[in-house]
Amino acid sequence: MADADTQMLIADMAARARTASRRLAAMNSDAKHRALLAAAAAIRDASDAIVAANAEDMAAAEASGLSGALLDRLRLDAGRVEATAAGVEAVARLDDPVGKLIERVERPNGLVLTRVRIPIGVIGIIYESRPNVTADAGALCAMSGNAAILRGGSEAIRSNRAIHAALAKGLEAGGMPVDAVQLVSVTDRAAVGAMLTAEGAIDMVVPRGGKGLVARVQAEARVPVLAHLDGLNHTYIDRAADPAMARDLALNAKMRRTGICGATETLLIDRGFADPAPVLVALADAGCELRGDAEVRAIEPRVVASSAEDWDTEYLDAILSVKLVDGAADAMAHIAAHGSHHTDAIVTEDASTAERFLAEVDSAIVMWNASTQFADGGEFGLGAEIGISTGRLHARGPVALEGLTTYKWVVRGTGQARP
Amino acid sequence: MADADTQMLIADMAARARTASRRLAAMNSDAKHRALLAAAAAIRDASDAIVAANAEDMAAAEASGLSGALLDRLRLDAGRVEATAAGVEAVARLDDPVGKLIERVERPNGLVLTRVRIPIGVIGIIYESRPNVTADAGALCAMSGNAAILRGGSEAIRSNRAIHAALAKGLEAGGMPVDAVQLVSVTDRAAVGAMLTAEGAIDMVVPRGGKGLVARVQAEARVPVLAHLDGLNHTYIDRAADPAMARDLALNAKMRRTGICGATETLLIDRGFADPAPVLVALADAGCELRGDAEVRAIEPRVVASSAEDWDTEYLDAILSVKLVDGAADAMAHIAAHGSHHTDAIVTEDASTAERFLAEVDSAIVMWNASTQFADGGEFGLGAEIGISTGRLHARGPVALEGLTTYKWVVRGTGQARP
Repeated sequence: MADADTQMLIADMAARARTASRRLAAMNSDAKHRALLAAAAAIRDASDAIVAANAEDMAAAEASGLSGALLDRLRLDAGRVEATAAGVEAVARLDDPVGKLIERVERPNGLVLTRVRIPIGVIGIIYESRPNVTADAGALCAMSGNAAILRGGSEAIRSNRAIHAALAKGLEAGGMPVDAVQLVSVTDRAAVGAMLTAEGAIDMVVPRGGKGLVARVQAEARVPVLAHLDGLNHTYIDRAADPAMARDLALNAKMRRTGICGATETLLIDRGFADPAPVLVALADAGCELRGDAEVRAIEPRVVASSAEDWDTEYLDAILSVKLVDGAADAMAHIAAHGSHHTDAIVTEDASTAERFLAEVDSAIVMWNASTQFADGGEFGLGAEIGISTGRLHARGPVALEGLTTYKWVVRGTGQARP
Repeated sequence: MADADTQMLIADMAARARTASRRLAAMNSDAKHRALLAAAAAIRDASDAIVAANAEDMAAAEASGLSGALLDRLRLDAGRVEATAAGVEAVARLDDPVGKLIERVERPNGLVLTRVRIPIGVIGIIYESRPNVTADAGALCAMSGNAAILRGGSEAIRSNRAIHAALAKGLEAGGMPVDAVQLVSVTDRAAVGAMLTAEGAIDMVVPRGGKGLVARVQAEARVPVLAHLDGLNHTYIDRAADPAMARDLALNAKMRRTGICGATETLLIDRGFADPAPVLVALADAGCELRGDAEVRAIEPRVVASSAEDWDTEYLDAILSVKLVDGAADAMAHIAAHGSHHTDAIVTEDASTAERFLAEVDSAIVMWNASTQFADGGEFGLGAEIGISTGRLHARGPVALEGLTTYKWVVRGTGQARP
């Protein structure tokens, strides 16, 4: 398609989404809940068709030489389709933030002001590979009363179309407007550009994918972006840490899953901590490559030499940079200089040191005596997440339904004119 | 200055602001309160110097042919300096949102999650003419624990420097870091561009000024913007409106002050409303130019012919477009097509019609039986405002201290590793 045609396509989708969003905003929680259950059922019913469409995507991806990890993300089987349907049901069970009272004030002149949560309006989701995002993100938007415009990767287009067809059919059968969740059916990249510059038509864009995608979205967007950039997370072992806890948390924070954004990438160890060797031994024994300077290598010979870039590298792999520091202040200075404001943890038995760390470290999530791998909407009790925001405004950290809402001021009077 | 020098200047100011913001974030409410009182006292002490500096700005502005309204905004006398100092004291008395608990969740695994309010960090304020913004905006940022970088108009540079010198001296004497509130002392426009593109260094920019300024900021900004665009507000008189209340509210909503963003610009009257003539007569008698079609002119002969543009025009003057509509649904369709999502009001005695209007009209502020002129942070009980946001994310409507904060997740554990 020509770029102008693509822009018209997105503008038309956004206009229909706006109309749908007005109806969605007026739906109550029960009605949205029922529509999502109908959508989950429709996805189950369409399982064979979805798996068949996915097989075509897989064949094309294999032919074009897509890598093994990407192929695995793309793959759907009956079990993954069932998990996708179950995920939609989980979203349907979430507490609906729309209509919630944030505050109520009665003014001396008798005006009653309330601030109430409402949907944002039209949300664009730009994502890669995993076709289940089509259902997850669509369900989260719909449950929070927002219309969604979904733009998945071209490698998953057949899978996305099949999932979207089932989802949309179910939502409509359940009483939602037909344009509640729309899928951009063209695969040219101009569609992403058109979404990112649709100020006023699309209210927020959420990119879900690798750094390349997120960086492109942040660079080009004129629409507000709810984005997750880096997870360059630190675990700091204080002099007052319990040695066994320090070892277990460092191991879990790095090695439980190395590819998630909550994984620890740099371990800071207080020079006053008496027992650093077992921590490094446990990590090395678990197959983690450790990088540090001569001082760290003196503790554990398997540590390899670090370079300056290590402190600024999100490995997303079984690699950990290790640094000795002089207490919490030094650790916090390192985090301020090199962290990505995502998740940082302290291990200590000293409550006052811990509280200082929690107060002063400027990250979306700060933890005391817990693994950074808990940085996750599900673990936070949000039930699901549209993403983890590393921005500072609107929503920080794991974002679920509440982050997909805004508020309005409702003023009720009895004829008050302003003096 | 060369653009590169200006960029370095802004980068250096932002780096110092970031350092200051860490200290500000750790200050408690009492300490911030005391520092603001010291700043107010310093502004009072410097009154003569501020008025003298302003006289130089005024002379230069008159020589360059600045218009009367702009000259009046620029002018400072002892009374206005006293009002500025009193404004800083009013901000010092505001409830401090920093540290407030938004929610607390205990997870089944024993992790205790809290979400607490923290300052945003470094706020840029770009403003025109009124030198009192230097103190107002600086005080609001400092009281909410943010470092501020202020960039006023070149026509007010001497006044702004004098006010800033007093403010900064007072804040520092009161215990705040010297870089808590900085003023960009160069007047070249490249400084605005450098602020707008300082992603990561400046966390949010608030433009305060005319549409030209706000539009430039929104077009160029890579930094998040908290902006007020148009106030194309409607008052809708429903068939069930009390006639006297309808007349009084329409008159107040338009004519109390015509130049503020909360002024009504379009009056929608239900064809089922029995008594439209007294409303239009009262407005015309008060000197308001009324614009409408033949049907409206048949009600009141002083109404002049409207054109299509009238429905999309924010007059900020004693001009009102008037349209007859078929009930609340028709009124809401007009507002959806032409409004700016700022403030819209319904006048009716019918509670169910009113609640439908309040729920369905998609504006930052919706009102029932009240004048749209109440759209103001002071009238909302916020004590002050940094601006009124017409954006949908982060903060909507009048924004005071809470809108200058964000939050962090604080997780307290006892050694939990993620399974």
